[in-house]
Amino acid sequence: MNSNEVIQFISKQKTAIIASVNEEGYPVARAMLSPRKIVGKDVYFSTNTSSNKVKQYLDNPKACIYFYKRGRFKYQGVSITGTMQVCEDQPTKDMIWRFGDTLFYKKGVTDPDYCVLKFTCEQAEYYCDFKVEKIKFD
Amino acid sequence: MNSNEVIQFISKQKTAIIASVNEEGYPVARAMLSPRKIVGKDVYFSTNTSSNKVKQYLDNPKACIYFYKRGRFKYQGVSITGTMQVCEDQPTKDMIWRFGDTLFYKKGVTDPDYCVLKFTCEQAEYYCDFKVEKIKFD
Repeated sequence: MNSNEVIQFISKQKTAIIASVNEEGYPVARAMLSPRKIVGKDVYFSTNTSSNKVKQYLDNPKACIYFYKRGRFKYQGVSITGTMQVCEDQPTKDMIWRFGDTLFYKKGVTDPDYCVLKFTCEQAEYYCDFKVEKIKFD
Repeated sequence: MNSNEVIQFISKQKTAIIASVNEEGYPVARAMLSPRKIVGKDVYFSTNTSSNKVKQYLDNPKACIYFYKRGRFKYQGVSITGTMQVCEDQPTKDMIWRFGDTLFYKKGVTDPDYCVLKFTCEQAEYYCDFKVEKIKFD
């Protein structure tokens, strides 16, 4: 698998797991809706500015995003490490906004509690059939 | 949700996500089969001694296990931080071993590439309907 195939694989999955490192140095994982947009090796998510993960990424941008597909006979997973940037600028918020988001962010696209997480892929590990493959993003 | 309810919730899910912190300080998440056994606040998994996660947990035992249930109308997730111990002693390996495991560990229950990960829960965050609840394990 090369980095383009990794991007193709993750763009098909419905759930993303994202991980951060908290104040005490523990990893913290949680599920997210699938990425809103993927541009090159940048993967965009929307989230609440007030959430714990935003605090954690502002303190420590080291991050991981993980996607998996559990088929009947085959399990595939890809764990990508990289950095997570918290974007509160209006152009980025505009780019990611979708109709219906006011359900989550009452004040609309300028809601201060709406922000964007931009993950930049650095390297990936692809797991399939008990084998691991390492992939670099250039 | 209290700590007993957290244990009940996680014991019903088929996939666990476990996270570690790697040598460069990045969080790393990956899926695992559901826990083999849960005793009090100790959650047991089986794995390959040669895997990256074993190396990472020996260097840094800080860990997270995450479980989620994506229903039709409701999303529930629980992220538990705690410590991960790598157990290579025979009594623990015997306790976790199941018929059929020779498929993964050719040499059987004494296979040096078979070991046990024992996660001890410290605290949890339970996510449901856009709310977060913190739970302590005593």
